[in-house]
Amino acid sequence: MEERPYVSWDMMNSFMIDVFKACGVPEEDAAICADVLLESDRRGIESHGCNRFKPIYIDRIDNGTLLPVTKMDIVKETPTTVVMDANNGMGMVASWHMMKKLIEKASVYGMAGGAIYNSTHYGIAGYWTTMAEKAGMIGITGTNARPSVAPTWGVEPMMGTNPLTFTMPTDEEFPFNFDCATSIVQNGKIEYYERMGKPTPENLVITKDGGTMTDSHEILKQMRAGNCALLSIGGAGEDTGGYKGYGFTTIVEILSAALAGGPYMKELSGKDENGNNKMYRLGHFFFVINPEFFMGLDTFKATAGGILRDLRASEKAPGAERIYTAGEKEWIAWQDRKDKGVPVSESVQKELLALRNRFQLNYTFPFE
Amino acid sequence: MEERPYVSWDMMNSFMIDVFKACGVPEEDAAICADVLLESDRRGIESHGCNRFKPIYIDRIDNGTLLPVTKMDIVKETPTTVVMDANNGMGMVASWHMMKKLIEKASVYGMAGGAIYNSTHYGIAGYWTTMAEKAGMIGITGTNARPSVAPTWGVEPMMGTNPLTFTMPTDEEFPFNFDCATSIVQNGKIEYYERMGKPTPENLVITKDGGTMTDSHEILKQMRAGNCALLSIGGAGEDTGGYKGYGFTTIVEILSAALAGGPYMKELSGKDENGNNKMYRLGHFFFVINPEFFMGLDTFKATAGGILRDLRASEKAPGAERIYTAGEKEWIAWQDRKDKGVPVSESVQKELLALRNRFQLNYTFPFE
Repeated sequence: MEERPYVSWDMMNSFMIDVFKACGVPEEDAAICADVLLESDRRGIESHGCNRFKPIYIDRIDNGTLLPVTKMDIVKETPTTVVMDANNGMGMVASWHMMKKLIEKASVYGMAGGAIYNSTHYGIAGYWTTMAEKAGMIGITGTNARPSVAPTWGVEPMMGTNPLTFTMPTDEEFPFNFDCATSIVQNGKIEYYERMGKPTPENLVITKDGGTMTDSHEILKQMRAGNCALLSIGGAGEDTGGYKGYGFTTIVEILSAALAGGPYMKELSGKDENGNNKMYRLGHFFFVINPEFFMGLDTFKATAGGILRDLRASEKAPGAERIYTAGEKEWIAWQDRKDKGVPVSESVQKELLALRNRFQLNYTFPFE
Repeated sequence: MEERPYVSWDMMNSFMIDVFKACGVPEEDAAICADVLLESDRRGIESHGCNRFKPIYIDRIDNGTLLPVTKMDIVKETPTTVVMDANNGMGMVASWHMMKKLIEKASVYGMAGGAIYNSTHYGIAGYWTTMAEKAGMIGITGTNARPSVAPTWGVEPMMGTNPLTFTMPTDEEFPFNFDCATSIVQNGKIEYYERMGKPTPENLVITKDGGTMTDSHEILKQMRAGNCALLSIGGAGEDTGGYKGYGFTTIVEILSAALAGGPYMKELSGKDENGNNKMYRLGHFFFVINPEFFMGLDTFKATAGGILRDLRASEKAPGAERIYTAGEKEWIAWQDRKDKGVPVSESVQKELLALRNRFQLNYTFPFE
């Protein structure tokens, strides 16, 4: 890993807010978006943090596929459910307001569910489920995304990498937080292998002839050309459970679109038939479950914590140092980073400087 | 596959009911249990059908670890939630009454959730979610089970094969029905490989030294001795997404125990410290989501059906005949079997005859 300078959390937060504001995002919304992006860095999930600030958000506001002002239409609302049209605004802003509503509903009714359509990238899925967890509840969410995953026995990129995310309260210092794609890896992991000059493990990607590829540079090239696809957890075929991963990816594809009646799969490519940019029109779903309507939050936390401690204490494979539970590595990353700030790679440094200069903002970064 | 004689659905159903009754199960409950077991055969899931009738249900009633009369205590109930103590009675009976309640609640409130503890094997998880689907709703369920699955970087059997099951309505002749363990395979699949004289694929099982085994006979022997464990989807380590499968298995372990405050993992072994049988005390959870409280059932069905049709029509790998969606193979099995009846293997034939003779029931099977 390259040695990267750190930028303080406060500085990065206010810089991001100022840039979002300069792009036309209202201040309150800008604060939400900056917090979602930085939460990813706080957890050490570098694929969804400040590295995405420019390419996934600022560039898309620039090219018109992401509207800085989020017009949220509540299309349907009941005591336990909400359907929202995000009108191609900021997916993070729409999701924040959705979760606020659902947590309120679940505090009164015990259960709540929501669906958003015509949305855009909503950041790390685990941010939304953690909002529920911080309120003492279980959060579940998923989102569709542009097509890149092939079904079992197929080779065509059809579904998104579709995370199915759960965060649950425990009696420990950090929650159970399971936040990942239902594909084995995402694009970002293959880009990482390429940067490290490493091959991609076999059976993560399927080619049109049904084979696999391991040359990371070549995979990225063929992915862009639509000539290969990612595989869901379990890999190709059925022998190693590939149809199970495929099932999970499909569940997320259905729930993300069908509750709200939004678009799906090929309709989410972000390109029209002539290859021009168009709105992504993503869909997300959210469920909140309040343990107080079962045997109570304390019971839930103690039981969940007991399970996680027993798992960590179980017999390790020779050479394995440690058994982790979901969310633990993220908490460790935060312990390491909380006093240091955000590590910023060379390419992100350049992006930040360019944005500062473009918007004539008054920041001097420690890496200058 | 051996050539197996068929027994008519009606005959098998009334035979199972009569045997359950002879064991002390009330008639109404016996009808539920027979229907759950036969639904597995109807779907072609032979690991959970009439082959389990004697070993998992009758034998356990005999040895006292399954009580034929199911005393169901509602420990907590709110407009959207139920917690039930099944008092070590029939898990299928408790689950049936739970789902009836939740469907009623979700028809009024849109969302409902339930947890059962001190339960026993509840049959195919997909039976419960299909009850919701038949009522026009989404069903989600999971259950814990005796420990057999190791966490990532671990080798000790800690968690059950923990299914995480979703059934969702579509506009097709059959629903989306995803019903399977979160481990790559279950015991039953390895038994199948052994019967066929085939090796088990690599990386489905982990040994104490962190390696894998492929000798199916030896795997079963070592599993019984606790010397190896099953792996969650994605396999050992992290490179092929093993931590994701491990995450899903853990989610089911937590929800199955923590909502109700019931026991978990090693406590569910069915054996006390002296190796004597004890109650299994399993836990299950259930969520029901009513699409009418979102954009409506018709919208949900059309969108889900559209996704599934597009997946099936997508480009196939060379040599692949067909792309399936979850639940399709089960529907195909039913088309083949509905007029023929239940195929009964030689070992099951013997069990049925022994039960008939033991309880002096007036049945003559076609295979006699």
